Amino acid sequence: MDINEARNYIGKEATIKGWVYNSRSSGKILFILLRDGTGFMQCVMAKNEVEDETFARAKALTQETSVIARGTIREDKRSPNGCELTLKEIEIIQLTRDYPITPKDHGVGFLMENRHLWLRSKRQWAILRIRHQIERAFRDFFDNRGFTLVDAPILTPNACEGSTTLFQTDYFGEPAFLSQSGQLYMEAAAMALGKVYCFGPTFRAEKSKTRRHLTEFWMLEPEIAYITFEENMKLQEDMITYVIRDVLKNRKDELDIIERDTSLLEKVEPPFPKIYYKEALEILKKHGKAVEWGDDFGSEEETILADTFNKPVFVHHFPIGAKAFYMKPDPEEPNTVLAADLLAPEGYGEIIGGSQRIDDYDLLLEKIRENNLSEEDYRWYLDLRKYGSVPHGGFGIGIERTVAWIAKLPHVRETISFPRLLGKIYP
Amino acid sequence: MDINEARNYIGKEATIKGWVYNSRSSGKILFILLRDGTGFMQCVMAKNEVEDETFARAKALTQETSVIARGTIREDKRSPNGCELTLKEIEIIQLTRDYPITPKDHGVGFLMENRHLWLRSKRQWAILRIRHQIERAFRDFFDNRGFTLVDAPILTPNACEGSTTLFQTDYFGEPAFLSQSGQLYMEAAAMALGKVYCFGPTFRAEKSKTRRHLTEFWMLEPEIAYITFEENMKLQEDMITYVIRDVLKNRKDELDIIERDTSLLEKVEPPFPKIYYKEALEILKKHGKAVEWGDDFGSEEETILADTFNKPVFVHHFPIGAKAFYMKPDPEEPNTVLAADLLAPEGYGEIIGGSQRIDDYDLLLEKIRENNLSEEDYRWYLDLRKYGSVPHGGFGIGIERTVAWIAKLPHVRETISFPRLLGKIYP
Repeated sequence: MDINEARNYIGKEATIKGWVYNSRSSGKILFILLRDGTGFMQCVMAKNEVEDETFARAKALTQETSVIARGTIREDKRSPNGCELTLKEIEIIQLTRDYPITPKDHGVGFLMENRHLWLRSKRQWAILRIRHQIERAFRDFFDNRGFTLVDAPILTPNACEGSTTLFQTDYFGEPAFLSQSGQLYMEAAAMALGKVYCFGPTFRAEKSKTRRHLTEFWMLEPEIAYITFEENMKLQEDMITYVIRDVLKNRKDELDIIERDTSLLEKVEPPFPKIYYKEALEILKKHGKAVEWGDDFGSEEETILADTFNKPVFVHHFPIGAKAFYMKPDPEEPNTVLAADLLAPEGYGEIIGGSQRIDDYDLLLEKIRENNLSEEDYRWYLDLRKYGSVPHGGFGIGIERTVAWIAKLPHVRETISFPRLLGKIYP
Repeated sequence: MDINEARNYIGKEATIKGWVYNSRSSGKILFILLRDGTGFMQCVMAKNEVEDETFARAKALTQETSVIARGTIREDKRSPNGCELTLKEIEIIQLTRDYPITPKDHGVGFLMENRHLWLRSKRQWAILRIRHQIERAFRDFFDNRGFTLVDAPILTPNACEGSTTLFQTDYFGEPAFLSQSGQLYMEAAAMALGKVYCFGPTFRAEKSKTRRHLTEFWMLEPEIAYITFEENMKLQEDMITYVIRDVLKNRKDELDIIERDTSLLEKVEPPFPKIYYKEALEILKKHGKAVEWGDDFGSEEETILADTFNKPVFVHHFPIGAKAFYMKPDPEEPNTVLAADLLAPEGYGEIIGGSQRIDDYDLLLEKIRENNLSEEDYRWYLDLRKYGSVPHGGFGIGIERTVAWIAKLPHVRETISFPRLLGKIYP
């Protein structure tokens, strides 16, 4: 029996295969909290109901000892999962000695070195389950809207967004790079399949040590033929709202475990506030931040902007040159591009970057040359503007930042099983 | 309107935003096959029902011209999607000239160089949609059984299965490798979450030029605490059966497009035949293949074995040393390991490799030393056998080989949007 199905076993015999999370004794009664990966279960053993030897064995159980427990499921309304196990027999698979992560406080450095064990703690367990639900909700959202998942390549001959932060490898004698984005490939796929998305790991060899940067992170990148800039933002609003509602509904217990106050999340619904970049500059000025026209925002600026609205906010119409080369200038305001970032509230900042893409061959070629990119590398990308070019756009959403926001975590390192950071690749 | 929803628009006005797939004229009537990424739609324009200028414009349309077409959806039972568009107006977004991939035959080299355009052909479109459905079915299968998706890292300090075929990169001054498997990390995750799977790209710098090898391929790797060897094979049978039924049901049109004879797929159901490695040697001997005890099978041997049964077949109990270091010896037959490969019929061979993992600390340490692996690199992996070790197992299934089998493709290069092969990284 999996613990998360225990409610269906009330009054019945059950076997739990798992690990001792903690235990305490009040002389004649033992309370053992078991975990099996699907949940946590309070198990109770009374001295006068079992053999002395059984009670002694159970009493000697240590943290993280692997056990098979047998008993009867009993309703208990005080318990988080509505029931308890009256423990009759417990078999030790391996008695654990000196488990390094005890209930006392440990430093983050120590926990990160022991990430393979830290994952077993209730909080990390809850976060990983929330992450899975978020990823699942994202996929469901796009699958239900007729998008085709297209896996983008990781090994690429060229850089999507600048080449200073690339991991390089030798590809049978040629240099190759780890992808920073699947977008360009998704543009090709959107011309074949209309509405597509990729969802995979991306890489940035950034020397940043901040609470928002990983060197390896997962990104979801939809790309849609014939979409308009406004429809693109609408899609993002619908997506974020769908994902948050899904997680609030399906991962309530886990959000409780990590003590997430969900009141602000519950208020997230379309439409989101939308401000021009130039309006953002005004707001920042009022907060004493002098950002010049043309500069991109740092995390401090993003926090100020998002906190002004207390819900996700789009900043759009960035100055030409502040963003990537492939973004389409607004014909109405040609010194700006049809690009929007979505900033998350509660201090999380940018989680989405999106834009219309240049669909004109000559303009794209000009931008490629201006940015000193290799025309030969981008020949196939230019082809998309040569053969049946259409208006199109898309966006990229960083999963770790989204998980950090929804779970309100202090650092992205807790959003993924084995985080990769500057100088950190073990375990 | 998306073409795949056209059936709901019969008798109504509709707008299709897409591309011209092909067109022909019978003097006074034009037949234009449009595609919009969600499907293909026959559009019919009668000369006497539209302005002369409109007819002339429509008649001059070339392959892959991007267009917005307006008209009325009319029921037509002869049509594959049950309806046609009576075309009233067509707006050209970009007139395409000299589209390189014409309806005539092209060599594979040329098509691969133009993979970004080749994706638009009906056959490639259908394959990518089948791939998505397969991936979705895999995820649904595990999600519905309470598994937690745990994304494994790509950048790793050590090799899972031998180090001769690794892509290497510089990780801020230290060597790092692109992951060949997420399994070891999934073992850690299974101890925290019970039932887990990862699903992401994996890499092998193999100098093989065969129809079954990519250097970058997607792998799904479940890992389950407390599972037995028999339960593991049962899980695989259930999974394969679920995925095939799902694809036959939801991608019938696409399987028709690629002319897949699905009669053998329809017969796939549990239990699958299971033969010992030593029985496999006997079968091979009868076919004139002298494989020595201890050798692994090549693709020719796998084809013979799978064709013997005409359905997926497990080969299990491989000799110790023929497979990976972490596989658990069978206590009943200590010269063999509790490992099973699943071979697909119709010439596709191995699609799954699975096993029980060594759960004893001392034995695992011995194997690590025997294989000249770094004890320090595997310290965290050894920890899993030190703290609450439990019997566990899992498997890895290659997505591209599975797609190749289900779609009956001659080569894995057509199973993924942008395949990476020996010496092939563009586009």
